[in-house]
Amino acid sequence: MTYSVTVRDHMMIAHSFTGEVFGPAQRLHGATYIVDATFRATALDADGVVVDIGRASEVLGGILSTLSYRNLDDEPEFSGVNTTTERLCSVIAERLVTAARDGGLGRGASQLSAIVVTLHESHIAWASFEVAL
Amino acid sequence: MTYSVTVRDHMMIAHSFTGEVFGPAQRLHGATYIVDATFRATALDADGVVVDIGRASEVLGGILSTLSYRNLDDEPEFSGVNTTTERLCSVIAERLVTAARDGGLGRGASQLSAIVVTLHESHIAWASFEVAL
Amino acid sequence: MTYSVTVRDHMMIAHSFTGEVFGPAQRLHGATYIVDATFRATALDADGVVVDIGRASEVLGGILSTLSYRNLDDEPEFSGVNTTTERLCSVIAERLVTAARDGGLGRGASQLSAIVVTLHESHIAWASFEVAL
Amino acid sequence: MTYSVTVRDHMMIAHSFTGEVFGPAQRLHGATYIVDATFRATALDADGVVVDIGRASEVLGGILSTLSYRNLDDEPEFSGVNTTTERLCSVIAERLVTAARDGGLGRGASQLSAIVVTLHESHIAWASFEVAL
Amino acid sequence: MTYSVTVRDHMMIAHSFTGEVFGPAQRLHGATYIVDATFRATALDADGVVVDIGRASEVLGGILSTLSYRNLDDEPEFSGVNTTTERLCSVIAERLVTAARDGGLGRGASQLSAIVVTLHESHIAWASFEVAL
Amino acid sequence: MTYSVTVRDHMMIAHSFTGEVFGPAQRLHGATYIVDATFRATALDADGVVVDIGRASEVLGGILSTLSYRNLDDEPEFSGVNTTTERLCSVIAERLVTAARDGGLGRGASQLSAIVVTLHESHIAWASFEVAL
Repeated sequence: MTYSVTVRDHMMIAHSFTGEVFGPAQRLHGATYIVDATFRATALDADGVVVDIGRASEVLGGILSTLSYRNLDDEPEFSGVNTTTERLCSVIAERLVTAARDGGLGRGASQLSAIVVTLHESHIAWASFEVAL
Repeated sequence: MTYSVTVRDHMMIAHSFTGEVFGPAQRLHGATYIVDATFRATALDADGVVVDIGRASEVLGGILSTLSYRNLDDEPEFSGVNTTTERLCSVIAERLVTAARDGGLGRGASQLSAIVVTLHESHIAWASFEVAL
Repeated sequence: MTYSVTVRDHMMIAHSFTGEVFGPAQRLHGATYIVDATFRATALDADGVVVDIGRASEVLGGILSTLSYRNLDDEPEFSGVNTTTERLCSVIAERLVTAARDGGLGRGASQLSAIVVTLHESHIAWASFEVAL
Repeated sequence: MTYSVTVRDHMMIAHSFTGEVFGPAQRLHGATYIVDATFRATALDADGVVVDIGRASEVLGGILSTLSYRNLDDEPEFSGVNTTTERLCSVIAERLVTAARDGGLGRGASQLSAIVVTLHESHIAWASFEVAL
Repeated sequence: MTYSVTVRDHMMIAHSFTGEVFGPAQRLHGATYIVDATFRATALDADGVVVDIGRASEVLGGILSTLSYRNLDDEPEFSGVNTTTERLCSVIAERLVTAARDGGLGRGASQLSAIVVTLHESHIAWASFEVAL
Repeated sequence: MTYSVTVRDHMMIAHSFTGEVFGPAQRLHGATYIVDATFRATALDADGVVVDIGRASEVLGGILSTLSYRNLDDEPEFSGVNTTTERLCSVIAERLVTAARDGGLGRGASQLSAIVVTLHESHIAWASFEVAL
């Protein structure tokens, strides 16, 4: 038995890719990413929730505010790597894991079994990253 | 290899929550839940389906009609618990499990491997519950 | 030539309806309304916008916060009327008109030609109200 | 009586805005725009269509390919103006008008009564531009 | 001031088109049409609605049941015409107009100002037909 | 840890079903299937992707072009079986597996851990098939 809760937000970034496989996406362009963060647990807490939706939304929003309205090509942490949709999923998921472990989500990470982050880059393409806790 | 079939319906309920974490949701309010019921199986039956979509829709609709257009705070079965989105997922899933075991879905529960129920409470939040059979 | 900008938010309310036509909706129940507020103008301002999306979102959010997480049956302003989806559209639209006239949207109401509010009550039903300015 | 046909595509661009009202969007960032192009007519042609959906999709795709995967700040045609969502709607709509007048849509512009372009910049904000023909 | 209410349903049909412009769609194929029926009025009735959503859904469902699960090429009423998405919009809209005039929607047609029918043939194409009453 | 990438396309087919359980769907009818193809991997390649989205879209589109705008009742490969939504999911998934093994997706099948295909037949029903690699 697995419960999950998902909250949705978005970010708008500029970036470019390195590698011939990317074709025109090697040029500086951008994307709106619709971001879904899913939290999984095998049981509910005393309030009857996996995580508080309001708190989860705030934590996700805080993480996205450090990425949104930026040119990711200029961010030192992404130096030398392509900020593909799938990589950005893992970046956001890892930060949510840290927030969970630091108590930012109001539950210990030991009570969550997994975190999944999905980024929709358009109406016809999206990616996700799932990490067990 | 896993096959799945999902049918969608909705219900409209009133309720309130107990616990400071819920903030303004401690007041009597309500929700439209868009309800997705997923049935999984490792093989198709002789007709080539996991479950008949028409039959699955009828069974789901029957379950939702016992919850919809009600104030869940007044329902004895929910006395003392918060009817959070994730808890309502499990309530509906368990009733689908019972229907499956009683033959209401036209297949024995032994042929279904899992049932998942997802409730969308808004365009930015949803929850789900998955149970193995 | 008409430009428009739309922002989306939501609210969760409880209410009941009076009148046999409403069937089970005469009981206390609730709804999530996904709310779309559209602002129309025949020209863009000096910044190149109809209204600032951030400001429009704040104004809409402020209006919804006075309705959300409430039992509308208890609100004096709705005494004696059914808070149907179409009526709630007009209530929110009229408040947006007032905000526009008071300068809350950063443009005089004379520069906006119309405001439209759409409330989605489920994946299969929605309503809207359009008012010329 | 009005008939309409809409086709959907998307583009991914980088840009920045000038003006304090834009807050963090003054920084170089980007967006995926889901683009809906609507063609209106008061009658159907001999084939029973407003415009051929395949042809309309090709024309729209051709226009978007001249904008997508670019930093709009570097495009001479946008020098000195903010490439807001509403302005980009009008840019694309005017190019569709030109294509219609040049016969690119397979009907004379005199048979189309209006063209509407809607750009969705996220799940919570979109803009549109409508021009009569 | 205009109020509107929309209800959604769907139908699944087979058909083929005549005319080189249709390319591979000249072969027998099919479509799921997601059908949105919109009813407009300048005022609400005594119950506070444009039309009763339940009744509107029933009337729409009744009309769709005469088209769904059929090969439209075999239906005498469509002999000699292409059953394009835009034409099917007008067929359904005209039947809704008849239902409105016959009192099937619970209001006289004189109280409705317009009916709009939109058919979504895929995630990237849709059509609509609007008729004033 | 699992990464995934999904691309969306669609196809429009005619078919009929054999078996009383299908009711009116025993008649020749049709469907638009919105098709989502998901590719899973436990690590990203040197470019930072699971699969190249452009290439995955092309491969999926090629597979769908062999099914779309056809009456599946006439296709020898489906002789004697119902082309239900869940079966068509598996047909498309198996072809994607073949493409992956043949190098058509630009990565060896050994680097992908699973492929999932989801077909949406309407706004209220969909099916999927997942195969491990």
